[in-house]
Amino acid sequence: IPISNTTEHGGSEGENNDKFFTHPRNPKALAAYLFAHNHLFYMMELLTGLLLMVLSLSEAPAVPSLRLDVYVHATLELLALVMVAFELCMKLRWLGFHTFIRHKRTMVKTCVLLLQFVEAIVVLIRQTSHLRVTRALRPIFLVDCRYCGAVRRNLRQIFQSLPPFIDILLLLLFFMVIFGTVSYCFVWLFSSQYFNTLENSIVSLFVLLTTANFPDVMMPAYSRNRWSCVFFIVYLSIELYFIMNLLLAVVFDTFNGVEKMKFKSLMLHKRSAIDHAFQLLVSRQRPMGLSLKQFDGLMRFYRPRMSARDRFLTYKALNTAGAPMLSLDDFYKFYEVIGLKWKARRSGEHWFDDLPHTTFLIFKGINLLVKSKAFQYTMCKWTSIISSGFSSSRIVPWSYIVFLTIYGVEVLLKVTGMGPLAYFSSGWNLFDFFVTVFAFLGLIALAFDMEPFYFIVVLRPLQLLRLFKIKQRYRNVLDTMFELFPRMASLGLTLIIFYYSFAIVGMEFFADVVYPNCCNTSTVADSYRQINVTIGNRTVLDEGYYYLNNFDNILSSFVTLFELTVVNNWYITMEGVTSMTTHWSRLYFMTFYIVTMVVMTIIVAFILDAFVFRMNYSRKNKEPLLDPEGKVFEAEVSRDEALATLELYKQTCPGLSSLNSLQGTDTHTRSHSFTNLSQIQEWYAEYSRENLPQSDRSLVERELEIPPPCPDPEPQPNSQGPLSIN
Amino acid sequence: IPISNTTEHGGSEGENNDKFFTHPRNPKALAAYLFAHNHLFYMMELLTGLLLMVLSLSEAPAVPSLRLDVYVHATLELLALVMVAFELCMKLRWLGFHTFIRHKRTMVKTCVLLLQFVEAIVVLIRQTSHLRVTRALRPIFLVDCRYCGAVRRNLRQIFQSLPPFIDILLLLLFFMVIFGTVSYCFVWLFSSQYFNTLENSIVSLFVLLTTANFPDVMMPAYSRNRWSCVFFIVYLSIELYFIMNLLLAVVFDTFNGVEKMKFKSLMLHKRSAIDHAFQLLVSRQRPMGLSLKQFDGLMRFYRPRMSARDRFLTYKALNTAGAPMLSLDDFYKFYEVIGLKWKARRSGEHWFDDLPHTTFLIFKGINLLVKSKAFQYTMCKWTSIISSGFSSSRIVPWSYIVFLTIYGVEVLLKVTGMGPLAYFSSGWNLFDFFVTVFAFLGLIALAFDMEPFYFIVVLRPLQLLRLFKIKQRYRNVLDTMFELFPRMASLGLTLIIFYYSFAIVGMEFFADVVYPNCCNTSTVADSYRQINVTIGNRTVLDEGYYYLNNFDNILSSFVTLFELTVVNNWYITMEGVTSMTTHWSRLYFMTFYIVTMVVMTIIVAFILDAFVFRMNYSRKNKEPLLDPEGKVFEAEVSRDEALATLELYKQTCPGLSSLNSLQGTDTHTRSHSFTNLSQIQEWYAEYSRENLPQSDRSLVERELEIPPPCPDPEPQPNSQGPLSIN
Repeated sequence: IPISNTTEHGGSEGENNDKFFTHPRNPKALAAYLFAHNHLFYMMELLTGLLLMVLSLSEAPAVPSLRLDVYVHATLELLALVMVAFELCMKLRWLGFHTFIRHKRTMVKTCVLLLQFVEAIVVLIRQTSHLRVTRALRPIFLVDCRYCGAVRRNLRQIFQSLPPFIDILLLLLFFMVIFGTVSYCFVWLFSSQYFNTLENSIVSLFVLLTTANFPDVMMPAYSRNRWSCVFFIVYLSIELYFIMNLLLAVVFDTFNGVEKMKFKSLMLHKRSAIDHAFQLLVSRQRPMGLSLKQFDGLMRFYRPRMSARDRFLTYKALNTAGAPMLSLDDFYKFYEVIGLKWKARRSGEHWFDDLPHTTFLIFKGINLLVKSKAFQYTMCKWTSIISSGFSSSRIVPWSYIVFLTIYGVEVLLKVTGMGPLAYFSSGWNLFDFFVTVFAFLGLIALAFDMEPFYFIVVLRPLQLLRLFKIKQRYRNVLDTMFELFPRMASLGLTLIIFYYSFAIVGMEFFADVVYPNCCNTSTVADSYRQINVTIGNRTVLDEGYYYLNNFDNILSSFVTLFELTVVNNWYITMEGVTSMTTHWSRLYFMTFYIVTMVVMTIIVAFILDAFVFRMNYSRKNKEPLLDPEGKVFEAEVSRDEALATLELYKQTCPGLSSLNSLQGTDTHTRSHSFTNLSQIQEWYAEYSRENLPQSDRSLVERELEIPPPCPDPEPQPNSQGPLSIN
Repeated sequence: IPISNTTEHGGSEGENNDKFFTHPRNPKALAAYLFAHNHLFYMMELLTGLLLMVLSLSEAPAVPSLRLDVYVHATLELLALVMVAFELCMKLRWLGFHTFIRHKRTMVKTCVLLLQFVEAIVVLIRQTSHLRVTRALRPIFLVDCRYCGAVRRNLRQIFQSLPPFIDILLLLLFFMVIFGTVSYCFVWLFSSQYFNTLENSIVSLFVLLTTANFPDVMMPAYSRNRWSCVFFIVYLSIELYFIMNLLLAVVFDTFNGVEKMKFKSLMLHKRSAIDHAFQLLVSRQRPMGLSLKQFDGLMRFYRPRMSARDRFLTYKALNTAGAPMLSLDDFYKFYEVIGLKWKARRSGEHWFDDLPHTTFLIFKGINLLVKSKAFQYTMCKWTSIISSGFSSSRIVPWSYIVFLTIYGVEVLLKVTGMGPLAYFSSGWNLFDFFVTVFAFLGLIALAFDMEPFYFIVVLRPLQLLRLFKIKQRYRNVLDTMFELFPRMASLGLTLIIFYYSFAIVGMEFFADVVYPNCCNTSTVADSYRQINVTIGNRTVLDEGYYYLNNFDNILSSFVTLFELTVVNNWYITMEGVTSMTTHWSRLYFMTFYIVTMVVMTIIVAFILDAFVFRMNYSRKNKEPLLDPEGKVFEAEVSRDEALATLELYKQTCPGLSSLNSLQGTDTHTRSHSFTNLSQIQEWYAEYSRENLPQSDRSLVERELEIPPPCPDPEPQPNSQGPLSIN
């Protein structure tokens, strides 16, 4: 049993790029390993991590409505920490002590855990929160959990991009210092609040780099001498328009390199995992190949919920040569084929093929009509007419009702013409359907005067989005948008983790430091003002509003940090906080700016990379990349073959009802949609093969041809059968 | 004679991608052609164009110190226009009427010229300037001149990037309208000055897209309900962080495609020009090859100032096979080889090789010392020490003097050790030299208390730049910066041309509309305020300064437009002007924003492209891309060969003193620095060949193998000799 489980493990390992040395080595370790590797355990990990992070909503500077007593949230925290400790114990049991302390991420987690434990106990004893900056380390527990692999990858990529980034950053800061010195020297020209000390000069130039104070910082000098604008123009041209773009270029370049390396190493890792599994599976009598029986045994461990039909089809798809045994070369495609989804091909082309003849002809006509270009263009023309005249008034023009009826009829026609299944399988049709249904609901809401549903009326202009599906570029853009969504979400999550850490630090140091009329000594007093002004005979509240950008609780902190990310007017928040605390607070804001700059630059580089690649890809293939049905590859199964397989299955495990599906359907299609992981990896494979310089390309190909040596030195005792089925 | 001149013309045509159908067809046309194609004429074109543009400094809303009377500047304008008309006449004469009206650019120029003529005469008659928006078209005269080819190319590239750009822009505007409608519907939440009408909503969202009004626009709603921030966060995430990056990606992609196409077409054009020239040059007896004599004749027309030595070496470099005649295949490399610079190889390695032995040993030692790594590192350490302690005070610490002396000695050592020529041929050494000299001058200025030279002292921190030459990345960055400079300059010039047109339009409509305390009815009244405020017992001038951002003359307009380009707080200028004129003024500002966005995006795309390519290139070659001596390729010339050539030359044209240089030097080196045009084109060639997908690459190669058919149908009467020498 251990051997087959190791194989299974090798399988999932190959997929996830885990290290082989973390394999469980003995039955006790295996028990712990199995305990720690299922979705229930992963879920627990995730929830514990989330709980720890969410706790900061109710701790000391809490969101008013969610405030909890100290003993409540400290107990909750202790509970969560105990859970984390339990998880770590399982890991220790599975990995063994030596591997455990060699694993860097786990060690860091352990240290943070101990620290948090001590602090939580201290809080519980003192019944009051002390300065707990270490809470900023809490995201570690979340990031370490199995489901956050994408976030971990992003973080690794960010850290790998750092060295070149820092080089260019130094260049940036260097020019800043030079210009700061120059401006400080021409004190007779620049003597304003912005340049009165060397520190202020450099801070002003740092803010100027973000353009947040731009014309204002120039104005006093400009009003004194018109030529002083040259200083600012030269500074911005060098720093903002040249070096900042350079920063993007360097990050873009590093990002590409890292992606390529990652893909290469993952591919090699998968190959060695397959090698490993193959060596374990083959029987001694026939060491060169894998029989269906052996393969079936593997699949039952690797994917317990896969149907017998799919297992057989997978085997057939791997076995391209049609030989009785699966060779190692065939087996190498395992991860690609395992990602495919199998579905039986429908016998007929249309859902109405088996209806009576007259009905069939009617539906056939509708089908041809809705698929025609003319129909689509007419519908889009109408859309543009109807939408150009949209208004948000509550009076519905009769034309709107007419057009909406036409839409309704269109949807009905399409559903009947294409069949409900085919219709709803296209994202665009789904979109059409929901837009139309929403419009009808909006109309009903208006007719019956239901106040809370007015928001539906507001979404009316979304109908214009229909227009976008005509133009290829928009289709590309929107399709790519949907495809990139998972990756974008993981990048967003990474950003939120940075936000969280900064929010905790901000709350610990700057909670409740800004309030209305607080910063009267600073240069940004106006923005924090809240006074009653009498104009004529009316009293108006003159509000600066910036006191709302505070660190009073974690939600406010997040909004404040988002404002800092957008950069505009961020110096007002900085100066406000600085005037109420010390000059060192600026360090916090500047660090935050630089960190978000890194993350944002990587996001830009990622979007740029993905889109440019996609455009090249679709240009090369000429055909639209994502036709609604996806790419279809067929594997034909003859009736004889199916029956033979059925016999085999009946032999090994009699009474498996799912096998019946093999009978009756002669042909199966396998379709893979572009969204599944293996396809994206394939996509990247092609991508990196294309973009690598000649020398590197040959390297990859060589690596593919010569499989790395198998890590198992001694021959396996395979006589007991490759897998103990049952 | 016409034939040889056509050949010469074919030569320069091939280089510049002019169309072949613009060839002069008869002797009269040729005379006009020759007249219009020399540097004197080009200079005249340039100066006329510049004069017309500079005139706007002195016209109606003039810079005070440069104001001219109406009759003066109108007369100057007429004069310049007459010059342009004269140039056009020459062109008409050369091209013939039919070609002339087929040439689009020339036709546009003619129309603009006629319009300007009429307007200038009207101004002269009425003695007052009317609304002359057409002055915005003046840059056409400058752009059309021969020296502004780079700017024309940029403009073409911008126009070619427009269609995809506009597509994405529409997407951007579409979402803006949707969000605008939504915000206008939730009027109970958003009812502030920013969202009180639908127009204001959309304008606010447009400004928000540039982040210029960010936290402010959110604040009123945020103070009412904290969750309203979601609206703004979603809007910015979609518009700013996604679609704007998409815009960059699309422009980047189109830009790459256009560059590739341009390079391909230029290469093909050059080939057909060479074909053409070859057909004209070969004699009837030997139609397969070109003799040295024929080649020499060509070169004397093509490059009259090239020395006989260089002509011979060029021939030899082309003639790689060593055959007596130059084949067409050899001749195809013409443009590459013609860009090479030839210099005789020095007999010895060092300049001091022929000095007496003792002196030689001393210099040899110094040479070894200054080239050693240890020496360089020591100097850099010192620099970092000295620079870290720099201050802008006038008291010079003694350590500074000591280190400066060391620098002086270093420079002296290097000059003597490497020889002045070798020393100054490296840009980094030149930089070192000037920094040291400046530092000394600054010291002298301080010592003798010469006020106006204090600025030199300020440049002291520039010494830190020395540190950058150690790290490869910085060397790469700075070297690339210098290489890209010409292209960046042309992009900058293109931007200035857009600025000019917008400045003229701005001046015509918005001159003198803003002044202190002007915009009291608008939301930005504070920024235009200039009032005396009494605080305690002091009277302080409370200045908003924004009235300085006006369109009162062309220089102010340029500064204002630069501020609009930087984007921050641009809406204050927009709202100020709008409040004093009509709502339609916003159109001007928004159009300007979009235009600069296009140009800036292209600049970013260009920098990105160039740097990423360069990094890949230098990574591929591993060796530093620009070793100080450049790539050196040697062509050895034996003494016999040299004498034979000399004989030949003496035969054809006796008494040419420049030939003497052939004797005495046995070996010549040809070195090409990376900065010359042909190299950069070669660089691009490699670049595009590498980046093209496989199918395109084979296309290029096929195009290279099968030369396009020669455009000349009838065989040339070559019996009179290929070129009439003397």
